[in-house]
Amino acid sequence: MSVIPTSHTDLLERPLFAHLGTVRPDGRPQVNPMWFSWDGEHLFFTNTKTRHKYRNVTAHPVVAVSINDPKNPYRYLEVRGTVERIDDDSSGAFFLTLAERYGMQFDGPPPDAEHRVVYVVRPTSVSHQ
Amino acid sequence: MSVIPTSHTDLLERPLFAHLGTVRPDGRPQVNPMWFSWDGEHLFFTNTKTRHKYRNVTAHPVVAVSINDPKNPYRYLEVRGTVERIDDDSSGAFFLTLAERYGMQFDGPPPDAEHRVVYVVRPTSVSHQ
Repeated sequence: MSVIPTSHTDLLERPLFAHLGTVRPDGRPQVNPMWFSWDGEHLFFTNTKTRHKYRNVTAHPVVAVSINDPKNPYRYLEVRGTVERIDDDSSGAFFLTLAERYGMQFDGPPPDAEHRVVYVVRPTSVSHQ
Repeated sequence: MSVIPTSHTDLLERPLFAHLGTVRPDGRPQVNPMWFSWDGEHLFFTNTKTRHKYRNVTAHPVVAVSINDPKNPYRYLEVRGTVERIDDDSSGAFFLTLAERYGMQFDGPPPDAEHRVVYVVRPTSVSHQ
């Protein structure tokens, strides 16, 4: 059973940009547009250990994303969730899968592959319109 | 002097949607698409005292917004800032000004005008691409 309403799953299935909210160590929020994917149970994000976001989600493993429909920006889904795992992606394999979802082709792993990780997020609650 | 880079001020001047990140009383983030306006010094948002966001910004008067360019979604501006004031808007006057910016016409104040407030946010730092 997912907390995602079936009326809005298309916003997770389409390669849209998710505005990912994290909380900085000092308690202030941060929001950045991110690629993501969704397998019906978890949301997945690629990032590197060198970014502020990595510091944020290791300090506070809770996130929220806001995604609106480019064709109708008043239609949106907010998903709040917990970072269940941070998986290693030093092969760049997940990055390349995600890049392909967004129409990007690479000849090999990205130059920063050694620092790549995957945030695996379990949705806990939503809001939508 | 503003912290907003001149290369990205158009993203604040255009009636785009800002994905507003706030922090809930329990420390978890929340992100929602919002109308906003910008006067060169502050960002302004309309909300009501009945919403979760009001509870959030009164508990933690710090926010972040992510705005990307619909014509080029990889071009974005994140603004982090402090809620300097929460002004009364029980006349609905600010709401109506903001609605007009987004191409909406109303015959009078919105039905929830009595609960309307304005978040006045001073940018403190940015990230952009």
